[in-house]
Amino acid sequence: MTRGRYREHRAMRLRLPIACIALEVILIILFGVAVEYDHDVSGEAGHKTNTTHHDYENEFYYRYPSFQDVHVMIFIGFGFLMTFLQRYGFSSVGFNFLIAAFSLQLATLVQGFLHTIMTGGKIHVGVESMINADFCTGSVLISFGAVLGKTSPVQMLTMAVFEVILFSVNEFILLSLLNAKDAGGSMTIHTFGAYFGLMVTRVLYRPNLDKSNKKNSSVYHSDIFAMIGTLYLWMFWPSFNSAITLHGDIQHRTALNTYYSLAACTLSTYAFSALLNHEGKLDMVHIQNAALAGGVALGTAAEMMITPFGSMIVGFLAGAISVLGYRFITPFLESKLKIQDTCGVHNLHGMPGILGAIVGAITSLAATKEHYGNGLTAVFPKITSDFPASAQAGMQAISLVVTLGIALIGGIIVGFILKLPIYGAPSDSQCFEDGVYWEVPGEPEDCQELAAVKSGEESEKLN
Amino acid sequence: MTRGRYREHRAMRLRLPIACIALEVILIILFGVAVEYDHDVSGEAGHKTNTTHHDYENEFYYRYPSFQDVHVMIFIGFGFLMTFLQRYGFSSVGFNFLIAAFSLQLATLVQGFLHTIMTGGKIHVGVESMINADFCTGSVLISFGAVLGKTSPVQMLTMAVFEVILFSVNEFILLSLLNAKDAGGSMTIHTFGAYFGLMVTRVLYRPNLDKSNKKNSSVYHSDIFAMIGTLYLWMFWPSFNSAITLHGDIQHRTALNTYYSLAACTLSTYAFSALLNHEGKLDMVHIQNAALAGGVALGTAAEMMITPFGSMIVGFLAGAISVLGYRFITPFLESKLKIQDTCGVHNLHGMPGILGAIVGAITSLAATKEHYGNGLTAVFPKITSDFPASAQAGMQAISLVVTLGIALIGGIIVGFILKLPIYGAPSDSQCFEDGVYWEVPGEPEDCQELAAVKSGEESEKLN
Amino acid sequence: MTRGRYREHRAMRLRLPIACIALEVILIILFGVAVEYDHDVSGEAGHKTNTTHHDYENEFYYRYPSFQDVHVMIFIGFGFLMTFLQRYGFSSVGFNFLIAAFSLQLATLVQGFLHTIMTGGKIHVGVESMINADFCTGSVLISFGAVLGKTSPVQMLTMAVFEVILFSVNEFILLSLLNAKDAGGSMTIHTFGAYFGLMVTRVLYRPNLDKSNKKNSSVYHSDIFAMIGTLYLWMFWPSFNSAITLHGDIQHRTALNTYYSLAACTLSTYAFSALLNHEGKLDMVHIQNAALAGGVALGTAAEMMITPFGSMIVGFLAGAISVLGYRFITPFLESKLKIQDTCGVHNLHGMPGILGAIVGAITSLAATKEHYGNGLTAVFPKITSDFPASAQAGMQAISLVVTLGIALIGGIIVGFILKLPIYGAPSDSQCFEDGVYWEVPGEPEDCQELAAVKSGEESEKLN
Repeated sequence: MTRGRYREHRAMRLRLPIACIALEVILIILFGVAVEYDHDVSGEAGHKTNTTHHDYENEFYYRYPSFQDVHVMIFIGFGFLMTFLQRYGFSSVGFNFLIAAFSLQLATLVQGFLHTIMTGGKIHVGVESMINADFCTGSVLISFGAVLGKTSPVQMLTMAVFEVILFSVNEFILLSLLNAKDAGGSMTIHTFGAYFGLMVTRVLYRPNLDKSNKKNSSVYHSDIFAMIGTLYLWMFWPSFNSAITLHGDIQHRTALNTYYSLAACTLSTYAFSALLNHEGKLDMVHIQNAALAGGVALGTAAEMMITPFGSMIVGFLAGAISVLGYRFITPFLESKLKIQDTCGVHNLHGMPGILGAIVGAITSLAATKEHYGNGLTAVFPKITSDFPASAQAGMQAISLVVTLGIALIGGIIVGFILKLPIYGAPSDSQCFEDGVYWEVPGEPEDCQELAAVKSGEESEKLN
Repeated sequence: MTRGRYREHRAMRLRLPIACIALEVILIILFGVAVEYDHDVSGEAGHKTNTTHHDYENEFYYRYPSFQDVHVMIFIGFGFLMTFLQRYGFSSVGFNFLIAAFSLQLATLVQGFLHTIMTGGKIHVGVESMINADFCTGSVLISFGAVLGKTSPVQMLTMAVFEVILFSVNEFILLSLLNAKDAGGSMTIHTFGAYFGLMVTRVLYRPNLDKSNKKNSSVYHSDIFAMIGTLYLWMFWPSFNSAITLHGDIQHRTALNTYYSLAACTLSTYAFSALLNHEGKLDMVHIQNAALAGGVALGTAAEMMITPFGSMIVGFLAGAISVLGYRFITPFLESKLKIQDTCGVHNLHGMPGILGAIVGAITSLAATKEHYGNGLTAVFPKITSDFPASAQAGMQAISLVVTLGIALIGGIIVGFILKLPIYGAPSDSQCFEDGVYWEVPGEPEDCQELAAVKSGEESEKLN
Repeated sequence: MTRGRYREHRAMRLRLPIACIALEVILIILFGVAVEYDHDVSGEAGHKTNTTHHDYENEFYYRYPSFQDVHVMIFIGFGFLMTFLQRYGFSSVGFNFLIAAFSLQLATLVQGFLHTIMTGGKIHVGVESMINADFCTGSVLISFGAVLGKTSPVQMLTMAVFEVILFSVNEFILLSLLNAKDAGGSMTIHTFGAYFGLMVTRVLYRPNLDKSNKKNSSVYHSDIFAMIGTLYLWMFWPSFNSAITLHGDIQHRTALNTYYSLAACTLSTYAFSALLNHEGKLDMVHIQNAALAGGVALGTAAEMMITPFGSMIVGFLAGAISVLGYRFITPFLESKLKIQDTCGVHNLHGMPGILGAIVGAITSLAATKEHYGNGLTAVFPKITSDFPASAQAGMQAISLVVTLGIALIGGIIVGFILKLPIYGAPSDSQCFEDGVYWEVPGEPEDCQELAAVKSGEESEKLN
């Protein structure tokens, strides 16, 4: 090994450890400086006065079951959804794990910091901050889906740093400045994460990706692993959309609406998947992804009085749009716009996210006392006689534009940052291949014997 | 392709899309006409007066964690339990997904409609209706287990339409007319679903199924996938049985009793599985299924004062009966009665369901003030001096007879409906094979090379 | 077959059934004699007076979601974590299931019995006893991880009997006599289970284990199955540590601290895994195990005011120690101390458990009114002016010593009991092989054809 190659080898070897250790040490220091328990967490040692409530009124009991469902979506749901690739299972579930564990810590700091601008004081953590951090992490993982198989772990950690910050800024603008409603994150999480990721993968375009194209596909077992991810996302999406809504009937309604949207979405996904196949066969890619679009598309409106009827219409449309996207738009994006979207996040998060933003704006228009009773101000605290429902709808629409703007521009800039040749990105022929970053075990004994047949060693063995 | 074959081909291609779209559009219209939020969901816009309670008294917090456990059982539990077949994993988990997403919507309407006969007004939806709809879906999926691998998706959707209606009628008769107790559905869910499905598969008997018999078995990895289903069903069965019981100590007790029944059932399953094997080896089919019989067998009595002692005896018996069923009764049903029960639902749901009904009737006999204190009327609202515990037990016994009658007769009729040659049912040689309905990916690259050995192409490759 | 061999064969065949049936019958009898519902379970029939509270104050709603998370960790988490072995998946997940179902019943009795020494009366069961029984079961499963692949099921059930008793005695000494704090079981569960299991595997040392060493490794798919276990353990560890803490802010804080510890631990695991590999590649064994050490290491201190900052430092250290253990200490234990630790429980539970005990003792030193406010007595009921924080810290340190003593001595004694030649232990060449205890299905059809190539049968087939 020449000295140059050795140095390169060592750099490769140390890149990920240094990145992880440096980032974690910075996080720990910042947590030490800036974070303290929320009053529901520190109990009677709390610095706020509102600590005389009963134990059962602790925020923990309202939100922890939902938090755990969201947590499962982030680590099992996203992680296993991406295991469909035949030789990238370790990376899919393993890098998903790494990026998520990092992002949730950083998100706590950045979201908390922006919140202290409004409230002052230190960053408070509790079950709500845990959910919000997981939400931001979800957005990063959506972008991860777009670049899956084509980036190194250090590249993805770098992306996460920038994306967490931009996500939090966008979320702050939408929720705190524009007073938009987006409890399930159609805009803040899905639209943002998808278009950010699509821009990153656009900048990182690989013209010769067909070198590893054989590996950019599933095998029988990997598709079943991916269904674990799909089903957990599907089942727990009602918890996702309702995790940070107000207590009581609003949380109840949000979960219910999402449940109906997803059920309708599933039927339309199966219908359109078979319809678009020339033999009428179902495509696992559609089932794994498009059936979830109903949850994305209700991310803004689920807490509103959209009714099960409205939810089902939205879900049905979302499934159809998503399947059509996989069939027609993804190939177009790849061939014409040079956007290589590994997981098809444009179809699962991008278009359904925009649909969700539009549905949210339209549903806001019907935000009247007649439909909401005294619950109106709970859902729309800004709506008054001076700020009618149409103004709220306008704010919702503006929020979508802002989100798209920040995501697209941010994604391009971060894409160029990630293009620097310092991250140990895989070569074209190494894409979609675990072996670059992982010690990959051998095949089962039987297979080894079979493989021995191939290489002509068998005669030795049997003689 | 002749014109006739072309037309047949197109019909095949369009059958599933048309069925899904038509059914979903009808569901959406009916939801639009007939469904409204329950008062706990619409909050202060609700039309009922009982809206002044605290947020923590919202039904959502009492039931949503249980609902999510039940939801996981329906989609992951049932779905993965059926992935044991070597070449039917896509269909097992995928059609389970489709049928469940459809059934829960229809069940909401049918169960809700029958309920409005008693209460008047529109159909109310909330977390309780979500759980009840999932329960009805569970029953459909049990029948799905009996016909697994031998039916087309359109056939199964058709079965679901009829079964949801019959299930709801039977449930209405038992719970509302006969005042039977059956919170965990030993009768309404398990006995009904099993015997209905067994009758359907009897009518659809395929004398030449041995053509695909090689595929009607598991492989190593598919058995491990199936254990995911088994364990989620096992772990969450306490939530299943307790999901719609009354709040507080009754819900607490129901979960506890089920937990002990399942634990005892697991030991008896392992014991009898090894005992009946001529080498003393364990059989994965038994472990995957019979270990769950303890949950089924406590579906009626779990909310009663059966005590952990009684629960464990029931669980132990249920495991033994179930293993014995797999060993002796399933072969008998197939060879003598022409009932081809793919998943052995007779052993997991049929016999343990009947056992559960009997245990429920017997336990009702001991429904006295002495055992229940003031809680007696909470569990048995009908029991008074005029309607003694023995009358309740009688009602429980009659309920079992009614359930068996509706399931058996309904199953035969629906079986004949499903025998019509319009559903694109698979031929005998296509049974237990994903490739008929799904785009199935190729094998991993290694395997392709190995396969090349077989077909003699290797010389080309290596030269 | 000679008569001697026949008798041996029958003994082999009957050993497991007899053990399971005998143990379960004894359990059922003891439950019948000694167990009754807790007052929150029996409701108004309860014998205590404290039954006038509202439904939402029932212990069930405070603890059941956490219980279900813990339950998933026990059956899916531990079970799938151990499926990494290529030919031992049925046994890993299946024996885990059997041992856990048995242990939780016995633990209910033994823990309950020791508790009645303090309170008198019968053993009370409810959601708290369910969690405590699952905790004890977790400790048994840790020991199971040390002996995995090298023991028969009857051997493991025997180990469970003794370990449950010793665990409960140790727990009783720590929590009731020494007044130590250990809600998440750094000492009682992890340290105890690990060192007990290490001593058992030491006594059962197999010098010729290399005969089956080929099978003592993973394959690609088995590593992905194992990640299901890892992720569920990781996600639900906050529920594990907080499951039996006091209500309200303490439970809230415990979950929060654990969440941060695990996140930091994950980054340090990835860092050290890559750092210690000569090519900078990640090792699945580290990711699957070491990333969980952050939960173990906070098992004692999580309920204290350790702050997110402190939690992250502990988590970071735990990940590093655990990876270093896999890299350097496990090979040392095997070659020098003859401790064959299949799953590396010393690295995941042993050292991080000791770290957790030390962290708990140190954190106790800072147990002052200043940090805890009026909440001090809730966390440390014994601390008064007469019993200062330093005394509490001393009790914590003594508890670690007691735990290590009972685990080491108990493990050696039980190891010798398990060495008796009556349990049907596998021979050296049968280790890590499902086929000894399970009916193992054939390979997929394709593979059978491929295998036919190997054995020269192909010519027949093709001709």
